[in-house]
Amino acid sequence: MKLLILGAGGVGSAAAKIAARRTFLSSVVVADYDLARAQKTVADVDDPRFHATAVDASDQSAVEALIGEQSIDAVLGATDPRFTMPIFRAALATKIHYLDMAMSLSRPHATDPYRQTGVKLGDEQFALATEWETSGKLALVGIGVEPGLADVFARYASDNLFSEIDELGVRDGANLTVDGYEFAPSFSIWTTIEECLNPPVVYEKERGWFTTEPFSEPEVFDFPDGIGEVECVNVEHEEVLLMPRWLEAKRVTFKYGLGNEFIEVLKTLHKLGLDRTEPLTVGGVQVSPRDVVAAALPNPAELGEKMHGKTCAGLWVQGTGKDGRPRSTYLYHVVDNAWSMAEYGCQAVVWQTAVNPIVALELIATGEWTGRGILGPEALPAEPFLELLAGDYASPWGIKELAV
Amino acid sequence: MKLLILGAGGVGSAAAKIAARRTFLSSVVVADYDLARAQKTVADVDDPRFHATAVDASDQSAVEALIGEQSIDAVLGATDPRFTMPIFRAALATKIHYLDMAMSLSRPHATDPYRQTGVKLGDEQFALATEWETSGKLALVGIGVEPGLADVFARYASDNLFSEIDELGVRDGANLTVDGYEFAPSFSIWTTIEECLNPPVVYEKERGWFTTEPFSEPEVFDFPDGIGEVECVNVEHEEVLLMPRWLEAKRVTFKYGLGNEFIEVLKTLHKLGLDRTEPLTVGGVQVSPRDVVAAALPNPAELGEKMHGKTCAGLWVQGTGKDGRPRSTYLYHVVDNAWSMAEYGCQAVVWQTAVNPIVALELIATGEWTGRGILGPEALPAEPFLELLAGDYASPWGIKELAV
Repeated sequence: MKLLILGAGGVGSAAAKIAARRTFLSSVVVADYDLARAQKTVADVDDPRFHATAVDASDQSAVEALIGEQSIDAVLGATDPRFTMPIFRAALATKIHYLDMAMSLSRPHATDPYRQTGVKLGDEQFALATEWETSGKLALVGIGVEPGLADVFARYASDNLFSEIDELGVRDGANLTVDGYEFAPSFSIWTTIEECLNPPVVYEKERGWFTTEPFSEPEVFDFPDGIGEVECVNVEHEEVLLMPRWLEAKRVTFKYGLGNEFIEVLKTLHKLGLDRTEPLTVGGVQVSPRDVVAAALPNPAELGEKMHGKTCAGLWVQGTGKDGRPRSTYLYHVVDNAWSMAEYGCQAVVWQTAVNPIVALELIATGEWTGRGILGPEALPAEPFLELLAGDYASPWGIKELAV
Repeated sequence: MKLLILGAGGVGSAAAKIAARRTFLSSVVVADYDLARAQKTVADVDDPRFHATAVDASDQSAVEALIGEQSIDAVLGATDPRFTMPIFRAALATKIHYLDMAMSLSRPHATDPYRQTGVKLGDEQFALATEWETSGKLALVGIGVEPGLADVFARYASDNLFSEIDELGVRDGANLTVDGYEFAPSFSIWTTIEECLNPPVVYEKERGWFTTEPFSEPEVFDFPDGIGEVECVNVEHEEVLLMPRWLEAKRVTFKYGLGNEFIEVLKTLHKLGLDRTEPLTVGGVQVSPRDVVAAALPNPAELGEKMHGKTCAGLWVQGTGKDGRPRSTYLYHVVDNAWSMAEYGCQAVVWQTAVNPIVALELIATGEWTGRGILGPEALPAEPFLELLAGDYASPWGIKELAV
């Protein structure tokens, strides 16, 4: 399989490092708008199967040309979600497999944004479902960790642990700290702002998808493996849009363990208009305030050496177990930054995101996962994924039973 | 007298409007790097004595050339304080009077910034004191409202109310709100960040000038005229550097009634590095994050129609009265936004800043204030200033006795 990784930021370069340990890929092109960044990734990997090139991910025809020239079989989009659609369309036009870790962006409801959905996450992609079916290729959307592994957990719980599900509740938390920085997010601030300041989306079987005010339904969740209690709030996330398409559940939520300090920072950025993406004129040049916020902060992909702690992604499932009794179970995956740095030279959050699409690509390459059209991870069997992740990729996952 | 107003922002254009009501100026050139802004100010004033032109205030020789061409007698610097020094040097080189409302910028102590001063506010200006003496012209520095009117109050209290002063404490507070904005500062956010995030400076007779952590010594001060209680904290400000040069006091402080919300916003901007002025590279262009913050917020000079409330500038003096008994007195000046909008079409904070240099220029033009070299407002007699302000300029001030 010939893979194109588009985007050599934190997640893209971690994906390259993870892929280099495996033999299923015959060649990997790492492309970025910044050639030096792609070249750095390829130099770090130091594997003759890997090549660097420059491409502008916003330019669909340039992406198509690159796919054609290099006879690519599958593209992994590892850019920020602004560029999801041109890459998605280029993969469709060139009839190759497509994977991403962040779906097409939402737009709030014009008049009632905190109760009704407008354009939902992924809507622009699902609008092309028929065309993907016809192409015969697989568009595996949302196959990072969240969305991604959380959706695999949902399929696993649905198949193996529960007879009826009241709530599929993604819960994400960490105890990461960064030496020498008063404030240093461990993931793309651009994406975090997008997720956290958009109206959070919730799914209920009776009501369908609806939205709430940002930071709604705060809850303290006790994360495993020594991470402990973190304040979590509703955040717009792909899992809420994906899981109900393939799985039965009365309610689907996503709560992010932002903690109070981060929530206050995000509220302040919004209050000052610094979350906006539309360019402003500043001293004769045009810049997007959100891009300036991202540029002012340290690059999270480069903080690994200074980071300490663990990050946890997981799914809290509540409902009725296979035995007919109430059940409350947290399925989770923890990465210790010390481990991911020692093993891969990648910080925990980007490594945890990047491993999942590579596991998925291996399942596609070996024929264990097959499908056509646009599918979420929960549309495919969970067991081979979880076995490969914990086995050959040496990254275990866990199940914790909670009081009911 | 031929005046050059350099900077046609909020304060500069308010100064033009105030000056247009008076007859002591024979001509006024309003200059800005943005010609359209200068032209707008001149069009609003609608007085044949006023002319607009473009000049880059950072370019000392361009300012000198403009002064020469127009035979200017005095320049009023109304730019942000980054441009104080080139204007100050241009006035010295061309031997004309100089007035400003914000002095040359400080630089924190390299190793002990929250205890020791580094380069203090105005140090760069006072380094040229001998040259100004020799030129025979007057450089009247810090003649806005704070610094400015607060310094006039200090001189007045020192001459008329107190035999010994324990503390000269500037206290600034407001109850201004802006319709339709969650957050809309009523004064330049660039300058507010500069003032509030630099280490605050305090003067004590025994110790000289020293600094503290930002936002130190919080105190609730009860402002007059219905404004009420506002949380005030130490802030770096020119009065602390000016007053001890000419007046006897055991302690000099400046506390700004920022309120909790504003303090949290400033702390967050600092935490994210968005207070920095050094340019960042963002998508191929260079911008200063602080300029982006300013550009993202509404222009405070244009908010007057939507503003409600009053702003108060004043000086809390504690010590021994002329009668030998303990005395605690607040001298203050309140501007109601409704009044300044109705009378001048200017919002309260910029009007309150802009009126003082025009009153001072009138005293210089009529010979009531004379002097040479670099002087603060407290170096000149307070009575004619306060009489003219409350009389012909119709803007009264007050004295409130506090419990001792």
